[in-house]
Amino acid sequence: MNWQDEIESAAQRIRPFLRKTPTLRAEGFGLSYPVELKLEQVQHTGSFKARGAFNTLLSSDVPKAGVVAASGGNHGAAVGFAASRLGHPARIFVPEMAGPAKIALIQRTGAELTVVPGAYSNALDAARDHEDRTGAMQIHAYDAPATVAGQGTVMREWEKQGLEADTVLIAVGGGGLIAGALAWLGDRRKVVAVEPDTACTLHAALKADTPVDVEVSGIAANALGARRIGQICFDLSRHGVQSVLVNDTAIAQAQQALWHETRQLVEPAGATALAALMSGSYRPKPGERVAVLICGGNLAPDPVA
Amino acid sequence: MNWQDEIESAAQRIRPFLRKTPTLRAEGFGLSYPVELKLEQVQHTGSFKARGAFNTLLSSDVPKAGVVAASGGNHGAAVGFAASRLGHPARIFVPEMAGPAKIALIQRTGAELTVVPGAYSNALDAARDHEDRTGAMQIHAYDAPATVAGQGTVMREWEKQGLEADTVLIAVGGGGLIAGALAWLGDRRKVVAVEPDTACTLHAALKADTPVDVEVSGIAANALGARRIGQICFDLSRHGVQSVLVNDTAIAQAQQALWHETRQLVEPAGATALAALMSGSYRPKPGERVAVLICGGNLAPDPVA
Repeated sequence: MNWQDEIESAAQRIRPFLRKTPTLRAEGFGLSYPVELKLEQVQHTGSFKARGAFNTLLSSDVPKAGVVAASGGNHGAAVGFAASRLGHPARIFVPEMAGPAKIALIQRTGAELTVVPGAYSNALDAARDHEDRTGAMQIHAYDAPATVAGQGTVMREWEKQGLEADTVLIAVGGGGLIAGALAWLGDRRKVVAVEPDTACTLHAALKADTPVDVEVSGIAANALGARRIGQICFDLSRHGVQSVLVNDTAIAQAQQALWHETRQLVEPAGATALAALMSGSYRPKPGERVAVLICGGNLAPDPVA
Repeated sequence: MNWQDEIESAAQRIRPFLRKTPTLRAEGFGLSYPVELKLEQVQHTGSFKARGAFNTLLSSDVPKAGVVAASGGNHGAAVGFAASRLGHPARIFVPEMAGPAKIALIQRTGAELTVVPGAYSNALDAARDHEDRTGAMQIHAYDAPATVAGQGTVMREWEKQGLEADTVLIAVGGGGLIAGALAWLGDRRKVVAVEPDTACTLHAALKADTPVDVEVSGIAANALGARRIGQICFDLSRHGVQSVLVNDTAIAQAQQALWHETRQLVEPAGATALAALMSGSYRPKPGERVAVLICGGNLAPDPVA
């Protein structure tokens, strides 16, 4: 796979439908050095997921039955939004645990929505069943080349906006976003993978030297709570990614600091990468320039409901 | 007054202390055309006020007694923050009606804070009394050349960031921000002044052809609730500003839309300019490119408290 070409093509393909998200250089957060931020939660549907969803739909022959996805929230909203914009039917299966704010978010995209009792795996079963019955196309949330190439456009865009950092910190759930970053950056910059210590799929995989199932819980679990890291992410991560963990207290503190210092209100997953700096889980060397990717803002409960 | 020079000097003076705030081009908001946004609520202390405060302090001989300000919230936080960074004592008088979120915001700056029972005018009396007793320097919230020149750096910065709009919509309270914009822009772009219909100081002044006192109320009053437009703003506005009004329902709808469509959570004043487009109070001509300045994000109650 020539990732540079894939991501370049993805960027051209999705450009008419996506936002160029803002960037910011900020001092603060109790840190002695400035941090570059990219506010990717400003993207349509509130997370980077819209990039992979558009790239997948635009590079596929979508069947008449449309698309189907299972999702704890952000991926489902992105697939629903992209399908609606491109004129395809979409059916999203969400677990009850996604909560009313993310369920309302998916409903606003116009997708057909089924709330499935129980956890994510039940929603995934229901989505597969729907796929078998109808011929709808299943859109994977993270472990598919078109998804990874779409997410890779975040880092391409950031470099064109003048990213200076030596090191970029990125939160990891299933690994689609960080895989895209690694695929685009190669060895040009250091990438630090940040995971909640209660949902550490990449950390566990790197330790076991193969993707393994992990138990997931904690405040960021509905966005970072994949049970197993994607194979594409794992293969790209084996060479040179530094994996660090943060706890829920550190995530909540970073979430508060993002509001108090930059008026950016994000979901716990969106504050996870910053938590690694604030908590000292990752300590840059003197002079090392760092950047933090803010990946999602779909807070529950909805603050304006 | 050569405003271009004043604003250029202000920009050089305050540069080390201020953030370059992000910009964004967004479709949505139920509009058939895109809107350029500048997210000035990302500025230190959550509003543009920090620009005028730093410019005033950096261009003045600050007495040993330090500075004093009366404020419904945003100006006081800005003065407290700037004074603290520059090593001056600051005493801020806030009316009780400012509410706990803005009071906590001022407290976080390290300023000495006095909560005054009643409305803004009581706080202003207390601040004047403090000035007389101590010799502290009073920092006016909007009607002073150094304040206006500082606020003018917002528009200078936005133009350097590639602003394309023919028309810029700006919310008006006492008029410091829009005065700075008019001072910088001259006739280069059209400026639309947006006020709540329950706090319309500029609208009333333009009608009376002189600044007049107005009654103020409504959801944006603690930021846009000056009782009389500043003279500097009035003088700059007489030639060519279009004044439009919006009601509280329209402001609340714009506030919700900013969250749902861009994950920007702002105070009512910060959504007021967008409300003029969404409500149709201002309707651009076909092909007219528009921009909206988001001026403040200090929401109450604090969403992460």
